Amino acid sequence: MNTRADVLARLAAQGLALPTPPKPGGAYEPVRVLGGVGYVAIQFPVRDGVWLWQGRLGRELSTEDGYQAAQACALNVLAQIDATVGFEQLAGLNRFEAYLQTVEGWDAFPRVLDGASHLFLEALGEAGKHARAPLGIERLSKNAPIALVATFTLRE
Amino acid sequence: MNTRADVLARLAAQGLALPTPPKPGGAYEPVRVLGGVGYVAIQFPVRDGVWLWQGRLGRELSTEDGYQAAQACALNVLAQIDATVGFEQLAGLNRFEAYLQTVEGWDAFPRVLDGASHLFLEALGEAGKHARAPLGIERLSKNAPIALVATFTLRE
Amino acid sequence: MNTRADVLARLAAQGLALPTPPKPGGAYEPVRVLGGVGYVAIQFPVRDGVWLWQGRLGRELSTEDGYQAAQACALNVLAQIDATVGFEQLAGLNRFEAYLQTVEGWDAFPRVLDGASHLFLEALGEAGKHARAPLGIERLSKNAPIALVATFTLRE
Repeated sequence: MNTRADVLARLAAQGLALPTPPKPGGAYEPVRVLGGVGYVAIQFPVRDGVWLWQGRLGRELSTEDGYQAAQACALNVLAQIDATVGFEQLAGLNRFEAYLQTVEGWDAFPRVLDGASHLFLEALGEAGKHARAPLGIERLSKNAPIALVATFTLRE
Repeated sequence: MNTRADVLARLAAQGLALPTPPKPGGAYEPVRVLGGVGYVAIQFPVRDGVWLWQGRLGRELSTEDGYQAAQACALNVLAQIDATVGFEQLAGLNRFEAYLQTVEGWDAFPRVLDGASHLFLEALGEAGKHARAPLGIERLSKNAPIALVATFTLRE
Repeated sequence: MNTRADVLARLAAQGLALPTPPKPGGAYEPVRVLGGVGYVAIQFPVRDGVWLWQGRLGRELSTEDGYQAAQACALNVLAQIDATVGFEQLAGLNRFEAYLQTVEGWDAFPRVLDGASHLFLEALGEAGKHARAPLGIERLSKNAPIALVATFTLRE
């Protein structure tokens, strides 16, 4: 089991902190918990209302920008978990779908997704393991280069 | 708990009715229920075999058309729940992914998704709460402007 | 309940065999199992490291190629289930999302998805029933024409 202090310490060791969880921009919940499963609303690379990256991977943004943007999305997923159920209740992540704005010929999906995967594993250890899916999508809100849709399971 | 009469009355108060649930167009189930979770097949803005909206948001269709089309998809989600498990069995919606055909520069995702979110909340109350994800996709079947993929949890 | 021998025999009757499950190309699990649900990472039409189909449906590839490619993805889903929990533990498939690279005007989603649906039903019988969603996506890794994201439920 991860305590909140565990997670914060592991993030701090990498120079990272838990951001303020983004507020929903519509009539929905940031996390819906039912039947022992948590369904996190889409998370973008935004912090305190500022969009950290905008554009397409392979045009305005590099693959390395994408890695950082994926990490920023993953931090928001963690912030949402922290704000709703808390890390102590987390059995583990299930899967995340990553949606990316890219250009023709760009194909560095695994490297970008690892920006989120590495963060989850470093912050949560065993509970951070997950399946995933990279999806090159036509358009994301606010011209975001990447967004994550994640699901997790609670401890019984 | 919502009874069927509750849901129908709330829809009627808005001038809406539960449509006939669309039949699958292939070798799949309209709703798959396993382990206390209901997985609804993709729902389009179609009614009685007629496609109510077709085209792209920001080109053939306005944002307000999108709001109405999202509501039509949400009504079909409700119709599928009604036809399989019934509203009495519903603990609540989990999350929906909304896939939208849009054009470059169009960015009114939250308003369009609220067409589905408002319907779910008005028809189901607390059980209608949900997380969600807006996704600008290249192409949907039948040139639909929007489609919803929804999941729900049954009462134990 | 399906035994492994059942599944292999049904595949063999169609001239098919269970492939080697593809290894993850990043820091994730091929299947994550939590709370009685299995979340399969995205599966492409790849076998033993060779990409069986690449391109867009309606341009380099025909609808019939798409049907075969969907079947190849579905075989990989089965291989992942076999390699992690085994068919004996499977209560049933839940839903799959199918992501397709297509061109303007192409609209044979149901036929292509049936390539996966037929395989699941033939191999698993009742347990192979599922909901599904066809999604025309801008770009997939390795220029794959189709990829599947599937979820299943374990027996209690």
